[in-house]
Amino acid sequence: MTDTAPQNDPTTPNALPKGIRFAGVAGGIKASGKPDVSLIVTDRPAVMAGVYTTNQIVAAPVILTRSKTPTATGRVVVTNSGNANACTGDEGMQNAKAMCALAAELTGCDAADVMVMSTGVIGQPLPMQKVRAGIESAAGKLGDAEADFLASADAICTTDQFRKTVSQAVSIRGHEYCIAAMCKGAGMIAPNMATMLGVVMTDAPIGPKAAQTSLKEIANQTFNRVSVDGHMSTNDTVMLVCTGMSESENVQELTVEELAVWQEAATQVALKLAKMLVADGEGAARFFEVRVSGAANDDDAFVIAKTVAASPLVKTAITGGDPNWGRIVSAAGYAGPKIEPERTCLVIDGVMVFENGTPLSIDAAKLSSAMKSNSEVLADLKVGDGPGTASFWASDLTEAYVRFNSLYTT
Amino acid sequence: MTDTAPQNDPTTPNALPKGIRFAGVAGGIKASGKPDVSLIVTDRPAVMAGVYTTNQIVAAPVILTRSKTPTATGRVVVTNSGNANACTGDEGMQNAKAMCALAAELTGCDAADVMVMSTGVIGQPLPMQKVRAGIESAAGKLGDAEADFLASADAICTTDQFRKTVSQAVSIRGHEYCIAAMCKGAGMIAPNMATMLGVVMTDAPIGPKAAQTSLKEIANQTFNRVSVDGHMSTNDTVMLVCTGMSESENVQELTVEELAVWQEAATQVALKLAKMLVADGEGAARFFEVRVSGAANDDDAFVIAKTVAASPLVKTAITGGDPNWGRIVSAAGYAGPKIEPERTCLVIDGVMVFENGTPLSIDAAKLSSAMKSNSEVLADLKVGDGPGTASFWASDLTEAYVRFNSLYTT
Repeated sequence: MTDTAPQNDPTTPNALPKGIRFAGVAGGIKASGKPDVSLIVTDRPAVMAGVYTTNQIVAAPVILTRSKTPTATGRVVVTNSGNANACTGDEGMQNAKAMCALAAELTGCDAADVMVMSTGVIGQPLPMQKVRAGIESAAGKLGDAEADFLASADAICTTDQFRKTVSQAVSIRGHEYCIAAMCKGAGMIAPNMATMLGVVMTDAPIGPKAAQTSLKEIANQTFNRVSVDGHMSTNDTVMLVCTGMSESENVQELTVEELAVWQEAATQVALKLAKMLVADGEGAARFFEVRVSGAANDDDAFVIAKTVAASPLVKTAITGGDPNWGRIVSAAGYAGPKIEPERTCLVIDGVMVFENGTPLSIDAAKLSSAMKSNSEVLADLKVGDGPGTASFWASDLTEAYVRFNSLYTT
Repeated sequence: MTDTAPQNDPTTPNALPKGIRFAGVAGGIKASGKPDVSLIVTDRPAVMAGVYTTNQIVAAPVILTRSKTPTATGRVVVTNSGNANACTGDEGMQNAKAMCALAAELTGCDAADVMVMSTGVIGQPLPMQKVRAGIESAAGKLGDAEADFLASADAICTTDQFRKTVSQAVSIRGHEYCIAAMCKGAGMIAPNMATMLGVVMTDAPIGPKAAQTSLKEIANQTFNRVSVDGHMSTNDTVMLVCTGMSESENVQELTVEELAVWQEAATQVALKLAKMLVADGEGAARFFEVRVSGAANDDDAFVIAKTVAASPLVKTAITGGDPNWGRIVSAAGYAGPKIEPERTCLVIDGVMVFENGTPLSIDAAKLSSAMKSNSEVLADLKVGDGPGTASFWASDLTEAYVRFNSLYTT
């Protein structure tokens, strides 16, 4: 099974975690008729953890699901796309609860054990008749085949241009566990304020506290280090579903050392998904990584990398394949954390352009050609002699992005 | 004298502060042959104060001038455009000092009393032969006519599409003082990293300490509240020149109350210039003000307003005349400072679209038409019941901006 196309190798063992069924259907929420309702149902009570947007303007499904995690008795993740159920007042919360209640009824569990996610247009009430029809249809189609997993992954998409799934095995304690994950893109297109939604699933035995801590660390290393346009949604949610801790089987939870092995693998899975998000950013032509070293600590390095990646001037230089190092260096200079200008060095795609505060004579045309021929550009920025390092991944800024997002569509 | 075209009414008394001569010439630094060297020379020692970029990657002229202000013995502000003298190492500092020394020699003062500013391409040594020729030529053309003032204002421009000057009288203690100011734009175009440079001049009697404090407050209320693309330059400088405190005449310094009157007028002058900067932002089609109220304090309101104004999704909605309130409200939600979602209200160009956390039914097409017919859009955002307020002005984000800035020109 490859990273981006699990459907290409359906014979791989452990392509999907044991004990989970999936469905994705078109309930009619999207005018396009594309799939818009997803169900993920565990056979037995499972550990579920979540990380959520820190936006204070937060959608009803986020408020509701956040109140239920972490849990050791999760059973369902129900998701609709096409409508974010955000900024929808009391009615929005009632509708989010109704989605949980219906999914619980149809799958034979308690509504408290159902998590809900929504993504799509904000400020409009959910079309509950269509949402109900979609959940009912999905409940009748649950299956554990790869096609079911992919149908679920398709149904959470909005403006995504391609499906985003990753699956990987990890061997711990002589046992092979599976980590499979899906997400949908952060690209935004009016009037939708699309959302980053993700579900990471595993059959490894992880308890709720460990799951919550681990998910937070995974997200900090991956989904929190990518950006299309820096706008944080009202609905961003990543869930972790762990089916391996069935109480009836009395399986032993992973030790701290074992969990670290699992977490490293899960971080790689999430990083692959996160990079797919950026590559699928609206109007994105090129993708770039800002790698900062030499900062006082990792937090400082993160702030610098994020600031450089967010600069519209840096983004447009990447779009144009322009090795305009002044934009990168000066963005680092205003990021906030202390840097050492006299020790600052910048290497773009392997070519040092700025060394210890002094510009180097380079063949700019040659470097530009190299940048243009790569779909991914690497800016390696050393800001001093400290131990802090961080990477951040971002899409460039194109005329197509502006065109998409300035269209009048309200 | 109008705000934007002082040349239209040269008969107005006090069109320019007394005791200052100006010149602007083409020294050949710009390949285009446009003016690129400006001199501002006071007849007698004057108070000079400055506020500077907080970027840690900072140009030699900023380091040098910053070390000299505030002063009560300033005589000259020499500026070149076409080359920022930034990231130019030791040679850059030698060249900045040489500019001061030459201007001092030609105007008969001490190099310590000469302030220097530069703007233009970064990372390239100043073409000193041309810079010297320009300073020599300018020194021979100094005059106190309006044409001289305007020539000086023209010579500090880079990618500006129009000259930016404002002049205003203020009556204090029965005496009419003048405040005249010039600035150049923050628009950026590769390979230039253009810079915000400004000089505010007055013949009011203000001492160096008061001048420095007052200039900082003025800049915080004006130049620090505008943004084209959020990228802070290596060279940003605003100077305040006060000629009214000649020691020989024993003029009495403005009292605290009088200074407040002067500062209010100077703030209005600077605000007009700041708005011109935004209106002249690269590729800018429309200009918008984010006015935040109800925050816990003014600092919180400022952070919220700045975050909303910086969001590419908000900017592109303004470009498209799209009353996409979700983008504005959600940007406020991730800005950081605490807001009250249930008390958040948004009024766009006089139409309330979101009230106490609930979307209102509006005629979106009509509002869009109104937005498109205005060159300036006002988003009035109430985030709670606190006393904090702030305004921020920004340009929109257009395809033209991306086109300009992604051109390969290194």
